[in-house]
Amino acid sequence: MKNTFGDSISITLFGESHGTAIGAVLDGVAPGIKVDDDFIKKQLSLRRPQGVISTSRREEDKYTIVSGVLDGFTCGTPICIMIENSDVQSADYNCLKDLPRPSHADFTAREKYHGFENAAGGGHFSGRITAAIVAAAAIILPALNRKGIYIGTHIKKIANLTDRDFCDYKEDIISLSDKSFAVLDPDLEDDMNKVILSAAKDGDSVGGVLETAVYGMPSGIGEPWFDTAEGKLAHALFSIPAVKAIEFGTGFGFADLRGSEANDVFTVKDGRIITETNNNGGILGGITSGMPILLRCAVKPTPTIGKPQKTVDMKTLSEQQIVAAGRHDPCIVHRARVVIDSITAITISDMLAMRFGTDWLA
Amino acid sequence: MKNTFGDSISITLFGESHGTAIGAVLDGVAPGIKVDDDFIKKQLSLRRPQGVISTSRREEDKYTIVSGVLDGFTCGTPICIMIENSDVQSADYNCLKDLPRPSHADFTAREKYHGFENAAGGGHFSGRITAAIVAAAAIILPALNRKGIYIGTHIKKIANLTDRDFCDYKEDIISLSDKSFAVLDPDLEDDMNKVILSAAKDGDSVGGVLETAVYGMPSGIGEPWFDTAEGKLAHALFSIPAVKAIEFGTGFGFADLRGSEANDVFTVKDGRIITETNNNGGILGGITSGMPILLRCAVKPTPTIGKPQKTVDMKTLSEQQIVAAGRHDPCIVHRARVVIDSITAITISDMLAMRFGTDWLA
Amino acid sequence: MKNTFGDSISITLFGESHGTAIGAVLDGVAPGIKVDDDFIKKQLSLRRPQGVISTSRREEDKYTIVSGVLDGFTCGTPICIMIENSDVQSADYNCLKDLPRPSHADFTAREKYHGFENAAGGGHFSGRITAAIVAAAAIILPALNRKGIYIGTHIKKIANLTDRDFCDYKEDIISLSDKSFAVLDPDLEDDMNKVILSAAKDGDSVGGVLETAVYGMPSGIGEPWFDTAEGKLAHALFSIPAVKAIEFGTGFGFADLRGSEANDVFTVKDGRIITETNNNGGILGGITSGMPILLRCAVKPTPTIGKPQKTVDMKTLSEQQIVAAGRHDPCIVHRARVVIDSITAITISDMLAMRFGTDWLA
Amino acid sequence: MKNTFGDSISITLFGESHGTAIGAVLDGVAPGIKVDDDFIKKQLSLRRPQGVISTSRREEDKYTIVSGVLDGFTCGTPICIMIENSDVQSADYNCLKDLPRPSHADFTAREKYHGFENAAGGGHFSGRITAAIVAAAAIILPALNRKGIYIGTHIKKIANLTDRDFCDYKEDIISLSDKSFAVLDPDLEDDMNKVILSAAKDGDSVGGVLETAVYGMPSGIGEPWFDTAEGKLAHALFSIPAVKAIEFGTGFGFADLRGSEANDVFTVKDGRIITETNNNGGILGGITSGMPILLRCAVKPTPTIGKPQKTVDMKTLSEQQIVAAGRHDPCIVHRARVVIDSITAITISDMLAMRFGTDWLA
Repeated sequence: MKNTFGDSISITLFGESHGTAIGAVLDGVAPGIKVDDDFIKKQLSLRRPQGVISTSRREEDKYTIVSGVLDGFTCGTPICIMIENSDVQSADYNCLKDLPRPSHADFTAREKYHGFENAAGGGHFSGRITAAIVAAAAIILPALNRKGIYIGTHIKKIANLTDRDFCDYKEDIISLSDKSFAVLDPDLEDDMNKVILSAAKDGDSVGGVLETAVYGMPSGIGEPWFDTAEGKLAHALFSIPAVKAIEFGTGFGFADLRGSEANDVFTVKDGRIITETNNNGGILGGITSGMPILLRCAVKPTPTIGKPQKTVDMKTLSEQQIVAAGRHDPCIVHRARVVIDSITAITISDMLAMRFGTDWLA
Repeated sequence: MKNTFGDSISITLFGESHGTAIGAVLDGVAPGIKVDDDFIKKQLSLRRPQGVISTSRREEDKYTIVSGVLDGFTCGTPICIMIENSDVQSADYNCLKDLPRPSHADFTAREKYHGFENAAGGGHFSGRITAAIVAAAAIILPALNRKGIYIGTHIKKIANLTDRDFCDYKEDIISLSDKSFAVLDPDLEDDMNKVILSAAKDGDSVGGVLETAVYGMPSGIGEPWFDTAEGKLAHALFSIPAVKAIEFGTGFGFADLRGSEANDVFTVKDGRIITETNNNGGILGGITSGMPILLRCAVKPTPTIGKPQKTVDMKTLSEQQIVAAGRHDPCIVHRARVVIDSITAITISDMLAMRFGTDWLA
Repeated sequence: MKNTFGDSISITLFGESHGTAIGAVLDGVAPGIKVDDDFIKKQLSLRRPQGVISTSRREEDKYTIVSGVLDGFTCGTPICIMIENSDVQSADYNCLKDLPRPSHADFTAREKYHGFENAAGGGHFSGRITAAIVAAAAIILPALNRKGIYIGTHIKKIANLTDRDFCDYKEDIISLSDKSFAVLDPDLEDDMNKVILSAAKDGDSVGGVLETAVYGMPSGIGEPWFDTAEGKLAHALFSIPAVKAIEFGTGFGFADLRGSEANDVFTVKDGRIITETNNNGGILGGITSGMPILLRCAVKPTPTIGKPQKTVDMKTLSEQQIVAAGRHDPCIVHRARVVIDSITAITISDMLAMRFGTDWLA
Repeated sequence: MKNTFGDSISITLFGESHGTAIGAVLDGVAPGIKVDDDFIKKQLSLRRPQGVISTSRREEDKYTIVSGVLDGFTCGTPICIMIENSDVQSADYNCLKDLPRPSHADFTAREKYHGFENAAGGGHFSGRITAAIVAAAAIILPALNRKGIYIGTHIKKIANLTDRDFCDYKEDIISLSDKSFAVLDPDLEDDMNKVILSAAKDGDSVGGVLETAVYGMPSGIGEPWFDTAEGKLAHALFSIPAVKAIEFGTGFGFADLRGSEANDVFTVKDGRIITETNNNGGILGGITSGMPILLRCAVKPTPTIGKPQKTVDMKTLSEQQIVAAGRHDPCIVHRARVVIDSITAITISDMLAMRFGTDWLA
């Protein structure tokens, strides 16, 4: 299946940026989970363009739960969430439709869909689709919390500015939950914003690294081959349009270590076997160890920039210049964070449901 | 499904390191593909421990094609390949079976399988299982070549030694194909071996980074969400026991770039739209662009080392010391390379078969 | 995945009978297929309660194509079709919600969803959900026709009245396409309606048998094990709430034949190998032979009847009587026919896309 | 995936009738299930040609458990079971290889695999492959029994001879378990054998109907759409080469009933809600009700017969006569019974594991 992911709990995405609506069908969720509309709204607000560094489309994401929820509780049947597209400006689009924007999906969409794609605003490739993921996951996240599982993501790096590591995982994760600019070291927010605004002033954009922790993850989840915990998470997370790299635990840092430095030795704490370090990011042999899952995603700089760029007319093959029309956002790293939390929540819920059955989350 | 991967072309793995045999069932392969036994043997030899830096188990991987191949051609039906385990020494294993080796899967296997796992030698988690992947992929790889698709992996980094980038992709890939120690810069082999041997002398091990290119990949392959080209490849590649990070194109390097530096602008070459740079590693919006796919995997240092390490008895919860019994390999980076090629070959063949139908590869 | 079906072309269903809306996400459809709104409307009208024998809910199924279609052509991206529930009367429902209706899903829904299900009007189990299937398939069916593939279903049997067999498949299928009461022998319509009305007068209902033919199906489609053409079709068709039996070709009739009578011997016609008879219903060894696919579905009598029936209060376990509230339909056989056509269309399109690639249907 | 079935517990089949071996990989089985070799052997013997009415290949199915079982218990990892082909006579095959046997898969295999198929003895389509299914299921069946779930199949009908219905389900199922000719009414065995022998004397074959019951099935298993209990079971069961029809409960008999006769009214027994009748065969709305699952499969007459039959040379398109070479079996109905039990066991185990988690069966 194509725009669908998951085995026991699955999500199917639909919609285009400038179409009628976008949405998701979330299936396999246990019946009886309380749906918290305020939480869904809060999560959606974290994904929306905001603050001084966001100049782009700011429509409120008015969602409708079309099915699968009754009297504030999940029914167990497929949950369809729709978000209408109200703030659409595609008037100017037609004159650009044969000019693929560099590092966007315009060109590959054309190669795949032969010109029938609804390309305005990025179409089905738009980051806007992630709003549906965020809304869907916001139904599951509080249930995970009730099971003692907490998920949080912070901006690990923008340019040469690096946030501190997770320290007390649970406390740190909770501290991040309401921040619109999620750094663990509060002093960094200003500096990072300056870097972003400086890029914006130049009509340019910046990327970054996001770091995610899952605290309270049960051990024994995942499979030795293919459906490893890393593989499932990476599969889902690479959907995020700007994510181009994922590492678990020490990740690429392993290349600089010897085994004696890299190995996580076992010890006992509170009657439970843990590891002294967590270089493996909570996953050994593809299976969760009970240590916090730790992963980092690299987010490429927003491809839409104010500067003119070279491109090629896909019909005439003539070289052209393109300038991004209208608004654009010089940084999406701070907003991608809630999308990563959301995809992580759905993916681990699916793995937990496979392991413990469909009612486990309720 | 658990130890199975793929939609149109799928692979199912079975076997334990010290069991009767390991193997794979490769299904969905087009009928009529010539099977080249010499090539299978060569590929298996690249995966086997070898040279001065490998001291571990060196049995020849005698494979049997149990089904799906007749008179040297694929039948179209499931291909089962089995490799017997001949060189098994599990006599000493029992006294260690409650002592999980740091950074191995022993502990998580216990959490998942409750002590019923066949743990000797790593059991179903053993890197040995990758031999079955290599043999299965060796049936597909020549067919990909005939379609103009070439896959190659080189050792990008061990310790602080870094190999040169791919330059002429096709030529470089072909030059790598027979190397037992795959570096593009031949001068590096000695230096890297010295680093490995120095670690070995200390009873230690090293990790590294492998870089893979797929040349000649058709454009338009992959899906916008979930079944992105990155997501599918990462899902499969994270099966390799030591791989803990994957990046595409510029990957984590994107965090240091501005959009104007990171964007791959379009141009025309030989009547075809290409990008001037390839920071996106041949994939835009989850879909292949026709540029070479470029990815890098981080391989953690072999967890088995000669030095004594702390661990915990899983039955008594008492802290213990463990010393790796017998032989072990201070570096598997050079051997992992053929496994990455193999998993990449199977994964892109599956994506191509989904796109162009089951007979396309023949 | 649960409420999702298909490998290359997939359909995901959502919605409850008395909820906001019902709908489907159809993914994997080739880009560039012309969408014919009149045809969608016609197909939906064939599914709707109609004529003298239908007294139940008659709302027009106003559908919205939320995504995946632009300027009248499929985009290649997921197509979400929604149908609002306008004519909902669930006021009286609450007093009945602990009294499961015999042969409905009320009891099993309770066992599965623990009382959180949206049960009014059958909820997610309602036959109303099939409207979404019909609308989705109506996008695909004309494309199949353009490929020379025609699908048609007639009422083979109601009570002791039996329609004639398919004769000239293509002609017969086309003749059925606009009939609201699909019998090949036009004289039967009156007699069958009399049987239905007689049951209705008694506050009772009738079942029947529907026979489906797929003409022009390419040969070589399906797999030897599990994903056989029969298995895939049956898997999908058993979703239809009232379908309790499926047979291919001679089906249960094989039990009365000897091999020499049952075997379909080969002959040549117009330079093509065909079989003289079609007892195997166009499928041999799970794979299509190029002969018309022939299958029959048994439809149980509508469980909702006017007569009082015994049931049990699910909370108190006391025995109770239940009488169907409001309107109900004494026969759904004639309406199920377009649902069978629709599910068959989606399923064979999926099998064809797996075989020939995702663009084949366009 | 093609020759693979199941979501949480899956089975992958490989092998050809006259190849090296046939086998299955059974994945997702809970760790710690006792493996009973005597039971596996007994089940395999029930599938083997036997008695006066079987003249065909009688090799003992010597199986090897290649992986996934240690010290007599399942490990939780993939279980590969192989059965060697020892009694192979394909010498004469070549002269027939362009002459498709009527009602066999020879012709459709050629259409799909273009002549590369290993066609001798039916190749991958051979009923012999079912031996691997039987062996795999024999690992699971005793675990189901320990959970109070019993599966049994009897010969419901051969020619005009009809066995009695299930009466005391559990007792009847147990009574069937060791019978090589499984009829509930012991007086029928002789009569049915006479019918079969009479066909054999004429160089002909017979089909029949098999009826299966699953007693003790928990309620609430299955999904409303697509992954209905009926759909999953039918999908899997249609793999059996000769099965051409499946009905649940009253099945095709529903066409002759009115709703008031067909509906299963609810009542209470031993504090549990049950239905007074079981016309729905233990499944309502696709979900198990806790009543016994009841299904019937039609088995077509063995296509291999002693009489000469018309066929067509696939290369020259000339009409030819074909006579079955060597041995053949005039009836496989009595042997198919253990295959149906086996596929049913694997399928319901998968559904139970999806619902209750992977450890439930242990």
